[in-house]
Amino acid sequence: MKAKAPLTGIKVLDFTRVYSGPYCTMMLADLGAEVVKVERKGIGDDTHHFAPVKDGESAYFTYLNRNKKSIGLNLKSEEGVKIVKEMAGWADIVVENFSPGVVDKLGIGYKDLKEVNPRIIYGSISGFGQTGPYRKKPAYDVVCQAMGGFMNLTGEKDGKPYKLGPSIVDASAGIHMAYALMVALYYRERNGVGQFIDIGMMDTAFSTLENFVVTKTLTGVAPSRNGNANLGSAPFNSYRTKDGYVTIAVANNSLFQKLTGAMGREDLLENPLYKENYQRKANEDQLNLEVEKWTIERTTHEICEILDKAGVPVGPILTIDDLIADPHLKEREMLVDIDHPILGSITYPGNPIKMSESSAVAFERAPLLGEHQEYVLKDILKKSNSEIQLLKEQNVV
Amino acid sequence: MKAKAPLTGIKVLDFTRVYSGPYCTMMLADLGAEVVKVERKGIGDDTHHFAPVKDGESAYFTYLNRNKKSIGLNLKSEEGVKIVKEMAGWADIVVENFSPGVVDKLGIGYKDLKEVNPRIIYGSISGFGQTGPYRKKPAYDVVCQAMGGFMNLTGEKDGKPYKLGPSIVDASAGIHMAYALMVALYYRERNGVGQFIDIGMMDTAFSTLENFVVTKTLTGVAPSRNGNANLGSAPFNSYRTKDGYVTIAVANNSLFQKLTGAMGREDLLENPLYKENYQRKANEDQLNLEVEKWTIERTTHEICEILDKAGVPVGPILTIDDLIADPHLKEREMLVDIDHPILGSITYPGNPIKMSESSAVAFERAPLLGEHQEYVLKDILKKSNSEIQLLKEQNVV
Repeated sequence: MKAKAPLTGIKVLDFTRVYSGPYCTMMLADLGAEVVKVERKGIGDDTHHFAPVKDGESAYFTYLNRNKKSIGLNLKSEEGVKIVKEMAGWADIVVENFSPGVVDKLGIGYKDLKEVNPRIIYGSISGFGQTGPYRKKPAYDVVCQAMGGFMNLTGEKDGKPYKLGPSIVDASAGIHMAYALMVALYYRERNGVGQFIDIGMMDTAFSTLENFVVTKTLTGVAPSRNGNANLGSAPFNSYRTKDGYVTIAVANNSLFQKLTGAMGREDLLENPLYKENYQRKANEDQLNLEVEKWTIERTTHEICEILDKAGVPVGPILTIDDLIADPHLKEREMLVDIDHPILGSITYPGNPIKMSESSAVAFERAPLLGEHQEYVLKDILKKSNSEIQLLKEQNVV
Repeated sequence: MKAKAPLTGIKVLDFTRVYSGPYCTMMLADLGAEVVKVERKGIGDDTHHFAPVKDGESAYFTYLNRNKKSIGLNLKSEEGVKIVKEMAGWADIVVENFSPGVVDKLGIGYKDLKEVNPRIIYGSISGFGQTGPYRKKPAYDVVCQAMGGFMNLTGEKDGKPYKLGPSIVDASAGIHMAYALMVALYYRERNGVGQFIDIGMMDTAFSTLENFVVTKTLTGVAPSRNGNANLGSAPFNSYRTKDGYVTIAVANNSLFQKLTGAMGREDLLENPLYKENYQRKANEDQLNLEVEKWTIERTTHEICEILDKAGVPVGPILTIDDLIADPHLKEREMLVDIDHPILGSITYPGNPIKMSESSAVAFERAPLLGEHQEYVLKDILKKSNSEIQLLKEQNVV
């Protein structure tokens, strides 16, 4: 019997927009935190206009803002800033991903809200962080995939550099921040103080370059992109099949024995070029040709069946269509349908964190812009009807 | 005045190997948790043999296992399992990334350790999670980049699919688990119970596909890879320059005005093909040619200077050599030198989480295999010299 969502009772004041910040607060909201998203009055998050859009409503927005509440606020008005400060008294956590300096200019930076609530935990995500020479540079994910090292390492050796299709540095910065916020919350439980957390997207990309950085600093030679080859092992790559591509990952002698057995090519085991992993890696061009001679004669499905049975790591390159029909993702509750008054029923990726004693919330659709104005002003901030009326007249809410 | 590392006092029993699990426990250790890595006696983590290796020591291993302690243990002996159970009484958190089923077979699964310590938090990372039809499939990162949707979305429309160079799904699963562990720790503070956490790499990849999934389910058409183009905006891509490539990201009218101004091509603003973002996206092939006509005449450095000044998101595609000399990463303390008795001084990526009241530890080098045997057996488990002698004779430690 699962108790409840583990972050029930945690209150989040959410100024985030687009992807990195909203992925962070989605992780919090999925696990039960009460997240109030403060949007620009009448305009809202940029992603309200991001594809795919239907009848003026964006599925990009509804994906990343499920389980959250929304209020529209004029942050450039004195009264708007006052409301933010009142909400800071209510909140445990604040998250924002404006360009560095913007929240301070608005009067809702860490220093401002800490005065109201010394226990507040305040997380800022930006392209390059709050310090350092690049801090003022505007950034989207592709710029950070380029400047964080990812693009130079992706694609063919003598070809063009590629970004990963989805904006992975946004998502990665978001989940690094979610981790940091929980660390700060735990720290506050024990030490009584809140704090400011600064995460830069370039930093998080650089933090996840696997062995590329240490390879340079140990050997003096910087590795660059090399197709789908692995930096240390072979045969470990993608291979052409009768109907597409397949990935095969052989990182040690035992797996190489299994692979050659499945291919009916035990002779490769005897070849002195392929005895040990470092030799297979040194002679991988030839070896990859031997593997591809076998894969090209078979469909991806046939190869996966054969190698799955042999215990060799293998996988097809799944399309979005494949994934939405995937039986494994279904059983893992990673395909969640949510009804929406404008968009109808849409399938979203579920939450990847599966816990035994607690669980994600039953997903609620994303809010319409300003949908929870009444709730925030009345229930959280205890404002009277006449006060609310005045705020509306003053164009604050 | 910063207090101390925020996870000081948290104790982690770490069975992880290779990348995903070690990235998770590295995040915990960097922030002050005491992480004891249990390695196979005399053999250790596979990455002891992963490139780059010098004099028998791997910089891959030393990067991911900094700030941790190591004990070598024979997990297939009854006495070895007994020691694990004693350590479970000491630990707050256990993390492992064996194939599903392995820890239960060894007798050190969640059920086994929960009997000893009902408050234990136990995290398992695997390729496909602990449930579902693929759960027994062996996986390396490339298989999950393929089956989680990343590869099909990376590369040219009519070209080959690519993985991101570094093993990003490993790192992503690791940081999702670090978040989940902290959520569980917070839950335990409030509710007194530990729990089991199951994270599958395929799930975490699928969770970070940005708008690709909802685009399919809303429009009926599944997007596929399309070079470095953005799914919703243009001009937003990589462009050839005199000496390489540059990324430029224009997602709205204001940025398009800045870009065309910087290019001296205000005429593009008047072109009805390029008025609004959706029109620029619909006509992006032509528009990209116009941009590239300008970039190809200039060096990447010149373009970055011009567009930085104009406030347009722009970035060079940095190499590992560039990154290791990067002044911004230096100022952000993302380049950390650590001395090692075998490898000498090596530069590692620092921790990307920057906090105001607490901080990452001063980094200590990764342990040698079994280096903390004495510490674990004597200081943690309070064993006598004769008991330790017996364990050695029995080939347990």
